[in-house]
Amino acid sequence: MALHGGDIYKINREKGLEILDYSSNINPLGIPNSFKKALIEGIKDLERYPDTEYVELREAIARYNGCNVENIVVGNGATEVLFLYMKALKMKKVMIVAPTFAEYERASKVNGKEIFFFSYEKNFELDEEKLLKKADETDIVVLCNPNNPTGKFQPLDKIERIAKALEEKGKKLFIDEAFIEFIEDWESKTANLLKRKNIFILRALTKFFAIPGVRLGYGICYDDELLRRIEEIREPWSVNGVAEIAGKTMIFDKDYIERGRAWIKVEKKWFYDELLKIEEIEPIKTEINFILIKLLKAKAPIIRKKMIEKGVLIRDASNFRYLDDSYIRLAIKDRERNNKVLKLLKEVVESERVCDSR
Amino acid sequence: MALHGGDIYKINREKGLEILDYSSNINPLGIPNSFKKALIEGIKDLERYPDTEYVELREAIARYNGCNVENIVVGNGATEVLFLYMKALKMKKVMIVAPTFAEYERASKVNGKEIFFFSYEKNFELDEEKLLKKADETDIVVLCNPNNPTGKFQPLDKIERIAKALEEKGKKLFIDEAFIEFIEDWESKTANLLKRKNIFILRALTKFFAIPGVRLGYGICYDDELLRRIEEIREPWSVNGVAEIAGKTMIFDKDYIERGRAWIKVEKKWFYDELLKIEEIEPIKTEINFILIKLLKAKAPIIRKKMIEKGVLIRDASNFRYLDDSYIRLAIKDRERNNKVLKLLKEVVESERVCDSR
Repeated sequence: MALHGGDIYKINREKGLEILDYSSNINPLGIPNSFKKALIEGIKDLERYPDTEYVELREAIARYNGCNVENIVVGNGATEVLFLYMKALKMKKVMIVAPTFAEYERASKVNGKEIFFFSYEKNFELDEEKLLKKADETDIVVLCNPNNPTGKFQPLDKIERIAKALEEKGKKLFIDEAFIEFIEDWESKTANLLKRKNIFILRALTKFFAIPGVRLGYGICYDDELLRRIEEIREPWSVNGVAEIAGKTMIFDKDYIERGRAWIKVEKKWFYDELLKIEEIEPIKTEINFILIKLLKAKAPIIRKKMIEKGVLIRDASNFRYLDDSYIRLAIKDRERNNKVLKLLKEVVESERVCDSR
Repeated sequence: MALHGGDIYKINREKGLEILDYSSNINPLGIPNSFKKALIEGIKDLERYPDTEYVELREAIARYNGCNVENIVVGNGATEVLFLYMKALKMKKVMIVAPTFAEYERASKVNGKEIFFFSYEKNFELDEEKLLKKADETDIVVLCNPNNPTGKFQPLDKIERIAKALEEKGKKLFIDEAFIEFIEDWESKTANLLKRKNIFILRALTKFFAIPGVRLGYGICYDDELLRRIEEIREPWSVNGVAEIAGKTMIFDKDYIERGRAWIKVEKKWFYDELLKIEEIEPIKTEINFILIKLLKAKAPIIRKKMIEKGVLIRDASNFRYLDDSYIRLAIKDRERNNKVLKLLKEVVESERVCDSR
């Protein structure tokens, strides 16, 4: 098990109280009502095994993404799909663009791959030329887009050029789009529009639809051989019946999706602007529902500890490769809680400065 | 994906109607009310990631089994725990006592093991001496107890002798007890009472608690090194939040457990006795909630097809190793449905005899 942001349970166990979780990046609108209703109505269905082929679920997801049912692989959260991809491919070398989500490294290593990292540039920009040059040494490039923890998003034309160049060299591109629904007009920006054989797209319903407890992720793939191989190795019934119900209902809940879009559009800008006003920190401009922050003087583990004392769990981002103990990551939630967290963060950072200058 | 009994979805898709599923072996009492209530009350919890360490869930399961939280490994259904076991152990050779559940073979092969089979004797008895002799050629022995599809159960003293003999040779015993709660007084018969380092016990809440859609299985293990290795390779959050709720409530639902025990005690005897009255079939005496039946003249695929036409899906057991097309398997459900299925089976088998003699 790698270390993740979501160690709220451990904190709660230690503190014996519920604290506000700004370390995990979930839509604050909460579970869609359409799903709650469908679950309560469909509870009896849990007495049956899920469909091992998940035909109805995959059809719904295919419709949502404008592709065919054959192109959809479902999994017990995005994590299972990632592990299946790494297990299914016989290729040995994986290059991970970092800083990024820790599970790519673990999924690669657990499945016998050799890995190395490729770094974003200053301000977490992606240098396309450098990437392609370095990619000569690998078989698979892993890119999280939009990226966790930086909040940056690479445009579609750039992704297309990278994928084409990689294909010419017989290499594959794995793109994690778990957070893409938080991007404005994401439907015109997803790598799925390219429908390329050498691109595998990972998605999750966890984040935008606020159901991390349900576990539903999927892959979109246009490589028949890879799809066949994944089918061969996957465990039966890995996606539970609640996830089946979720997937078939909430991705068509237009009202929820609209409210989610309206919220993130306003709130990410507001939160960034407010963070800019706090001295001694430098927020990194984000396109999604969390934000990376550079502490100009304080240290992340100390700020995290002090925030916990004030009842808020934040992500100490120092264990992301290429980051250090000057980085923290905050979720973006609703205005009321964001306001509360902003005030507390300001207090904590400022008290650190006072301590420092003594 | 291997072929399993539960292909009800495919049949329903083909037939366009709901048919009675006697191919999957689920407690007919259905989902416990205690769990339904807890799920509806706890639906908001699905907005959080599950506890990656699953402390509360594992504590509940440990309490249910009289062991410590450290000895419990939870998984996304028993299947995940089985796959983790096969992946975690570096040992290469697996001997599977058959006929039995198909996933042991697949989990072994997917994880690079060499497998071979060891056969039950006549009437599906287990020859202990022969098994131990043959076990010289393996590292791990896999035993399903009670066994699917034969319904036979090996007593604890026999399991203890086998485990001890295997330990002296440095070998491991994997026991799948997914159906053990259907055995009378199972608490005094489980291999868990032995608390042996070389035994790994697989359990599922799927069968007795009728929640195949929820996906919750667990392992009981007293080998620290193996536990550490499993912890190293397992995927985070593989057990969903609904399964967490299920595991923490229904295993303590005494009323449900009592009703389940009362039902199976009466019904397995009654169903067996009634099957005995049908000419041209030979039911194999079972200790649990399904029954293997030898067709004395008819062929399993034909009987299955004819039963589907009458609205009942049964398991053609011919693809179990060491069985052939004279075997079918039936679930045992409530009296009303059992009666219906008995009548239909009698009709179908008798009509086959008529066809045969023409």
